[in-house]
Amino acid sequence: MNSDNSTPPWWRAPVQPPCATMKQTATERQLQLTKPPGALGKMEQIAVQLAAIQNNPQPSVEAVYITVFAGDHGIVEEGVSAFPQTVTVEMQRNFIAGGAAISVIARHLDAQLEVVNTGTHAITEQLPGVLHEPVALQTNSFLRQEAMTEAQWQQAMSIGKSAVARACAAQADLFIGGEMGIGNTTSATAILCSLCDKPVTDIAGPGTGLDQQGVARKIDIIRQAIEFHQANLTNAESIARILGGFEITSLTGAYIAAAQNKLPVVVDGFICTAAAAIALQLNPGIAPYLFFSHSSAEPGHRAILEHLGIDFIMDLNLRLGEGSGAATVVPLLRLACALHNEMATFAEAAVSAKLGG
Amino acid sequence: MNSDNSTPPWWRAPVQPPCATMKQTATERQLQLTKPPGALGKMEQIAVQLAAIQNNPQPSVEAVYITVFAGDHGIVEEGVSAFPQTVTVEMQRNFIAGGAAISVIARHLDAQLEVVNTGTHAITEQLPGVLHEPVALQTNSFLRQEAMTEAQWQQAMSIGKSAVARACAAQADLFIGGEMGIGNTTSATAILCSLCDKPVTDIAGPGTGLDQQGVARKIDIIRQAIEFHQANLTNAESIARILGGFEITSLTGAYIAAAQNKLPVVVDGFICTAAAAIALQLNPGIAPYLFFSHSSAEPGHRAILEHLGIDFIMDLNLRLGEGSGAATVVPLLRLACALHNEMATFAEAAVSAKLGG
Repeated sequence: MNSDNSTPPWWRAPVQPPCATMKQTATERQLQLTKPPGALGKMEQIAVQLAAIQNNPQPSVEAVYITVFAGDHGIVEEGVSAFPQTVTVEMQRNFIAGGAAISVIARHLDAQLEVVNTGTHAITEQLPGVLHEPVALQTNSFLRQEAMTEAQWQQAMSIGKSAVARACAAQADLFIGGEMGIGNTTSATAILCSLCDKPVTDIAGPGTGLDQQGVARKIDIIRQAIEFHQANLTNAESIARILGGFEITSLTGAYIAAAQNKLPVVVDGFICTAAAAIALQLNPGIAPYLFFSHSSAEPGHRAILEHLGIDFIMDLNLRLGEGSGAATVVPLLRLACALHNEMATFAEAAVSAKLGG
Repeated sequence: MNSDNSTPPWWRAPVQPPCATMKQTATERQLQLTKPPGALGKMEQIAVQLAAIQNNPQPSVEAVYITVFAGDHGIVEEGVSAFPQTVTVEMQRNFIAGGAAISVIARHLDAQLEVVNTGTHAITEQLPGVLHEPVALQTNSFLRQEAMTEAQWQQAMSIGKSAVARACAAQADLFIGGEMGIGNTTSATAILCSLCDKPVTDIAGPGTGLDQQGVARKIDIIRQAIEFHQANLTNAESIARILGGFEITSLTGAYIAAAQNKLPVVVDGFICTAAAAIALQLNPGIAPYLFFSHSSAEPGHRAILEHLGIDFIMDLNLRLGEGSGAATVVPLLRLACALHNEMATFAEAAVSAKLGG
């Protein structure tokens, strides 16, 4: 299962940068549109970046592919979540039935939505409508054990890669990864504290709704776990494997595979940011392909985004996951493309440009 | 033209508050939807507020009515803008031709867009497709004169009221006011500094793109003007009349009329915030009907929003006006409604609720 030393693993394969010439062309077009230069702020940057990624003077994100990865976490046995673990399975049914937040948003975006079971405790059989790719029933509790073996980590990475292959086959313009996994803010917090060398108290938060006592317990568990594994938390891969989750790892794999396929990605909230932070360490070339959708209500999220120097699109105080925050910004990306593609230039509209400009 | 002392003017007529019972019903529904309580953040608050305003358990903002008010400013003769004044007219043609930012967004939202000429210097004849309601060719330069007479101010207020009457006749679910007027950040800055008692240096910014020297000049002009008129800047109405613009005043009238008609409003950026700040002083009951869309790139905007205690929806670093920022958040409001209306409850989806909850 270990990769041959002479062949780098797939996730380290180089990512081609977005087209610099098209970026220049798109930037120049923005300066000709009937508005003061820069007046559409982030909407301009988004359109220019999408044009460069798609190497298309008329960028488009009409075809959106959303994959929600669900996975269970052994760490839940330590009492780190406000919801019972059965919810990971129950919510998969809800995604497919159309009643979850991401289902509603996907429908309104006319986006393709799929759900992948990367390993859930409560069931072993295939849920109708859910892609059944369990790595195991759940990860090990990382309090005293490594969450995953090397083979499991690679398998979870490949699950993400496969999702992107399906998105590419479906001719998607944009990929969104979502996650569902009771306990996964604990895993994401552990990853981010270890990766960014942040005190657990600065990053840990209530997740789905822990009270103050619950958060204190969560902090204690994460601290103990990081201390216990310290000697082995030597790089992004080991941090992801020892403290991570199957669904988080699948997101990491998906982000890298998407960039390798020149498919732009919208990153969701706190947990997806943990997956993206690992992905950025494993393959820094993916950076231009990732749009970070929002800063969430999970208190550590903004601190991590700032630490990583990441500019996000909005802050609606969301803390749901499922890819819901990422999906919510899709209309803004679509409007950014429409403005870029359809606004008149100063010449076309016979509008006077800036004085002395 | 002056209103009878015994009859309060139309803009002071009381606004009925949104339905408290429906607000409670909508709040309870949000707690039953399959997500941790509060996990959809501002999206939940938006849906609940729209339900209360519309007194409808299934709120909707499908039918959007956008009125862009255009007006010229005498203060431009003092050299306070980076663009020539002819642009106010040229852009009205662009709005109607479909090439401006607001035209593109309105088309993608399937919104109704109208343009009202409240008074422009460069033309007196009717522009094809533009509602021709000029109060005068432009306001007086408020450096040494009052921008408007009392009669002109009332006329501009009524132009806004008429736009809302058209929106109501068109059965709009949501009203957006936009503005176009070379020089109007100077007017808005003067209004806001006077109304909120803020130093001009804290609020004045580059507008459409002044350089540092231009901003210094703008600050100097506004300071002189406020000092010159100080004794008469005694209340919101006089501030609006002496320092304002026709299009700004029409926005003020529109915001009040919309709330009086229980029509929710999305407020755009810096200039619309000045209009809304006046409206809120004239008739505080309108507050629950106003959604503030964004904090703009104009540096004083956030300071003013904070001063007024206003929570805004996003910050995309926009500084275009035309109603473009307000229109950009419409898809978020629509998604907020869709989530509220279409998500499954815990009972419907057989999903376990919060532990001990």
